Amino acid sequence: MNNHPEAGYTRWALLLEFDGTGFVGWQRQENGPSIQTCLEEAGAAFFGGASVMTATSGRTDAGVHASGMVVQLDAPETRAVSAHQLRDGLNFHLKPHLIGVRMARLAPADWHARFSAIGRRYRYTILNRATRPILDAHRVWHVKHPLDDHVMREASRFLIGRHDFSSFRAASCQASGPVRTLDEMTITRSDDYIVIEVQARSFLHHQVRNFAGSLALVGRGKWSAAHLRDVLHARDRTQAGPTAPPEGLCLIRVDYPEKLF
Amino acid sequence: MNNHPEAGYTRWALLLEFDGTGFVGWQRQENGPSIQTCLEEAGAAFFGGASVMTATSGRTDAGVHASGMVVQLDAPETRAVSAHQLRDGLNFHLKPHLIGVRMARLAPADWHARFSAIGRRYRYTILNRATRPILDAHRVWHVKHPLDDHVMREASRFLIGRHDFSSFRAASCQASGPVRTLDEMTITRSDDYIVIEVQARSFLHHQVRNFAGSLALVGRGKWSAAHLRDVLHARDRTQAGPTAPPEGLCLIRVDYPEKLF
Repeated sequence: MNNHPEAGYTRWALLLEFDGTGFVGWQRQENGPSIQTCLEEAGAAFFGGASVMTATSGRTDAGVHASGMVVQLDAPETRAVSAHQLRDGLNFHLKPHLIGVRMARLAPADWHARFSAIGRRYRYTILNRATRPILDAHRVWHVKHPLDDHVMREASRFLIGRHDFSSFRAASCQASGPVRTLDEMTITRSDDYIVIEVQARSFLHHQVRNFAGSLALVGRGKWSAAHLRDVLHARDRTQAGPTAPPEGLCLIRVDYPEKLF
Repeated sequence: MNNHPEAGYTRWALLLEFDGTGFVGWQRQENGPSIQTCLEEAGAAFFGGASVMTATSGRTDAGVHASGMVVQLDAPETRAVSAHQLRDGLNFHLKPHLIGVRMARLAPADWHARFSAIGRRYRYTILNRATRPILDAHRVWHVKHPLDDHVMREASRFLIGRHDFSSFRAASCQASGPVRTLDEMTITRSDDYIVIEVQARSFLHHQVRNFAGSLALVGRGKWSAAHLRDVLHARDRTQAGPTAPPEGLCLIRVDYPEKLF
């Protein structure tokens, strides 16, 4: 897909929310239901069987959630619809699933959900207490051992800025290089919840979950804050901590040069 | 149940969290699964078949949640257990359900979960946007029409203090009188979420949900803030707004003269 829809198609921008539990992730796959499949099936149903094409601002893995993913949907021009009609029509057909279109609008000219994006914001939530999550089941990473958020915050400062993040990059990462600029990382604690928020132009595969896994080692006292800096400088995935589970991760915002939603 | 357990029983205090979706409420009933039934069955399983008796700080209706309900559990002394063993044992047997014991401790002398309580705190959450809840499905009241939280806050001031709350009392309420003292009511908006928190020694049946239902009428502009005051003064349930649905309500804290958890 390029920056223009095919002839006879209109490009829409959608603000998407979904619960990733039970899905194989955003992308269409053989081995189970994906967000993309559900959305394209809802689109086809709404447009009377004509196929629609979608692309996302960034793929999410199985079990990862989104409250603010932005996707593009190229729809046939054979049926004229308003943004509200499209939003409500897609939501009607999405209803069996925990997937919803929060907003829809015509895409700006030359706009692509992925290539035009200039910022992504993720939230990673840890429930730090002895007993399992109940009201937040499947929405948080449950860590039983007490975590010191102060030392986690201290360690997080080493990650902010432009670095070679090879130590926090999945082997499966398809990006052309390991250098990224982490614009922001905040770690806040409220009762038993530790919330890590990160903002960057783009992220490597598993980067946020790998941050969370290593920061938890710092919070438990297994690593010093300075050791996290050494791990970063090693540029070696085997030096870093385990990948934190997907259920704690949520894509909360995607930014474009022009504010869309 | 009185302020002392029966001979041969030990009284425990439990801090309970549950997702009320699909339950008939706290109390044991004929027409479906209750929180109390699940907890007592878990207790019986843990104590080798011996029955346990429970009572709550305050009943919750079907669909209402709790993150901080306090209950008492009278367990046979035949098996000596520590607070941690009781907590973990009950959680093991509760596992099929979204019910969890966050903490357990021996009850203070002469303590009763309901009669000793001196404060209850509830949170009522409204999702105020056009499209249905996804990540918060079954946890919020979905109100599509835009609500003005400023005027809701203005109206809320009339409710604070000691009043005859007959206008906000369910017909089924079993309390001896309609006068209560509302110690605190805060209304805060964060993006699409409007959160109403209330604190009082005790509440009438449906009082918080009736507050939410009437405040939403003020927020929509159907009522003025002053009209809510008139409704309060009318002391007539038929004057007030509809009862807001249970899924937005959560019991978040119960206070006792001595801090328990």
